[in-house]
Amino acid sequence: MRDGRIAAIGTNLEAPSGTPVESLRGELVLPGLVDAHTHLDKTLLGMPWHENTAGPALVDKIRYERRMRREWEIDAARQSARQIELSLAQGTTHILTHVDIDTENGLTCLEGVLSARDEWKDLIDIQLAAFPQSGLMSRPGTLELMREAMAMGCDWVGGLDPYAIDRDPKGHLDAIFGLAQTFGRPVDIHLHEPEEMGALTLSLIFERVRALGMNGKVTISHAFCLGSERSHIVGPLLDQLAELDIAVITTGPSGWAAPSVSQLTQAGIRVGSGNDGVRDTWKHYGDADMLSRAMFIGLRNRLCRDDEVALAFDICTLGGARIMRSADYGMSVGCAADLFVVAASGIAETVARQPVRKLVVKRGQVVARDGECIRHAR
Amino acid sequence: MRDGRIAAIGTNLEAPSGTPVESLRGELVLPGLVDAHTHLDKTLLGMPWHENTAGPALVDKIRYERRMRREWEIDAARQSARQIELSLAQGTTHILTHVDIDTENGLTCLEGVLSARDEWKDLIDIQLAAFPQSGLMSRPGTLELMREAMAMGCDWVGGLDPYAIDRDPKGHLDAIFGLAQTFGRPVDIHLHEPEEMGALTLSLIFERVRALGMNGKVTISHAFCLGSERSHIVGPLLDQLAELDIAVITTGPSGWAAPSVSQLTQAGIRVGSGNDGVRDTWKHYGDADMLSRAMFIGLRNRLCRDDEVALAFDICTLGGARIMRSADYGMSVGCAADLFVVAASGIAETVARQPVRKLVVKRGQVVARDGECIRHAR
Ligand SMILES: [Zn+2]
Ligand SMILES: [Zn+2]
Repeated sequence: MRDGRIAAIGTNLEAPSGTPVESLRGELVLPGLVDAHTHLDKTLLGMPWHENTAGPALVDKIRYERRMRREWEIDAARQSARQIELSLAQGTTHILTHVDIDTENGLTCLEGVLSARDEWKDLIDIQLAAFPQSGLMSRPGTLELMREAMAMGCDWVGGLDPYAIDRDPKGHLDAIFGLAQTFGRPVDIHLHEPEEMGALTLSLIFERVRALGMNGKVTISHAFCLGSERSHIVGPLLDQLAELDIAVITTGPSGWAAPSVSQLTQAGIRVGSGNDGVRDTWKHYGDADMLSRAMFIGLRNRLCRDDEVALAFDICTLGGARIMRSADYGMSVGCAADLFVVAASGIAETVARQPVRKLVVKRGQVVARDGECIRHAR
Repeated sequence: MRDGRIAAIGTNLEAPSGTPVESLRGELVLPGLVDAHTHLDKTLLGMPWHENTAGPALVDKIRYERRMRREWEIDAARQSARQIELSLAQGTTHILTHVDIDTENGLTCLEGVLSARDEWKDLIDIQLAAFPQSGLMSRPGTLELMREAMAMGCDWVGGLDPYAIDRDPKGHLDAIFGLAQTFGRPVDIHLHEPEEMGALTLSLIFERVRALGMNGKVTISHAFCLGSERSHIVGPLLDQLAELDIAVITTGPSGWAAPSVSQLTQAGIRVGSGNDGVRDTWKHYGDADMLSRAMFIGLRNRLCRDDEVALAFDICTLGGARIMRSADYGMSVGCAADLFVVAASGIAETVARQPVRKLVVKRGQVVARDGECIRHAR
């Protein structure tokens, strides 16, 4: 590696004297993991245990989180750093995080995540999406905050269930696509809406992508409607997603209908994944490890053969990088030297066993060793 | 603890001099984990990596496994011991394992698992089900082997998809209930059949339980038909299961319709869980850890509140013990001293974080410490 890039690949390479050398004996070097959907500002990692008593509905959980942010003093900067450290220790070299923007917390979450991103920018690439978690049209004042958030440097305009949560799909989508146009930024929409509802919302999204020429600039997160068992719903949606180069992010959720990653990739659609919330007020589960996420995708999609398991790995690496438009991502000469090392026979074993990351490298620099990050969060 | 049982619970207890004392400072003592559905004879743990190239259908995987057992030399005794060691290290004190009985392997798998059970009997309780993995009526000669297997000491009569795999539900069920009567043993049937097919097979099972008075002596593993979205299918089945005290085992699978554990327990049905196959020829995934299994159940069933997560834990402990009819299981004075210790604030954290088992105790004896078993398999 030289100047943060892969300079040569092979055996018996000559390195200029003084170049640090790592001895890897039969170990596997793999491209850095990409967590293309998480919420750094939400995690409770490292905090005392808090009993979860939230109600079952999505709106219950949204309200619960808004309240607990203050009661439990969930500091976005501190918590982001903790999850970043854990992600690095596990080989993640890129993160796309959605940051809550709402009229109660204003821009404080964003300020926290921005400061964490700045503090860790030499170790990891982080993109931010301004995320109207509590609703946009249904909470007056939010759109103005979203505009401010974009002006402060968010990379993505986020959206959330335009009909099911915000109850005004036209207003919601016009607003976020408006922001995207104003700031020249791509859009990533959390879409939990199931079956016909989600399909219709997708068709409203297609209209806007087409009208604004935003092909290749939109991502749908979760897209549960693509997990419908009814092929007459799913088929036409896949065609449109491919035509408009709209990407899909799936976490491989086990409790919801979820898109089939094989179907999506066969249709030529870019697919990435992410941990989504890690040990937060929504649920206690999560370890921020994109290798266990690959396993969840494998289990959810019944990926059993080694080549099928490799698809899950691709989604958690290259798939996310294609969504984050990391042009120099990859394992070829000239690519950014973002990679990790494990003792495993191949990719399927890496996903199945999730071995300790012996080495994690970001732009040619060792950022974690034997499962421990070189820098520690408070 | 005294004579393998819990002798007293409290603070500042007086122990007779010479009694070994373990210092636990604020750590949590929990009842032993119960893996009530696994396949010790199938695991590839500790073997070189073998690429999985099996076809997608259930019958492909059955045929593939039968072939690879010989090609890869999967020795049932050696492999059982490896999984037993891993299970012990992770706090499992009881295992119910299904053992392949077929006309190609004969009784060799059973001999292997029986010898492993014998070798480890001071450290763990293991029950065996004779399991016609390759079919019963559809493979002449299997029933005779099943009879021999029961005579050799199997605790359960196993069955498998009487219609979908064996293609003769009446013949299959008459055969296994016949064996159960002859040997006075309970029945555990793998039932993957979905929707109406599974519902009808269940009703044939109900008939036999009723006719033979086998209430409380039958378990249905997987029972995917109970995961149907159609309540007119599921409701009546739940009523019958409760009435006949038929238990259900679920692994919380993420790629299949699966019964709702909340629904089952609310209906008064005994529910247990197990790891099913661990890193075998079916799939590479699995870690034999019943705490991660509790997490899978939690994710599959969307158990988010702490009290909901505790239900997943109950299923992986007491639920399994009720299926295995371990009468002295529990955390009260007089119960068998089968337990484990973790550093955690409570059950929900234990399930969410799956911390190292600091101590595992079986009948009062320490069998694992800091995640390592006191005995090692070859
Ligand atoms: Zn999210
Ligand atoms: Zn099984």
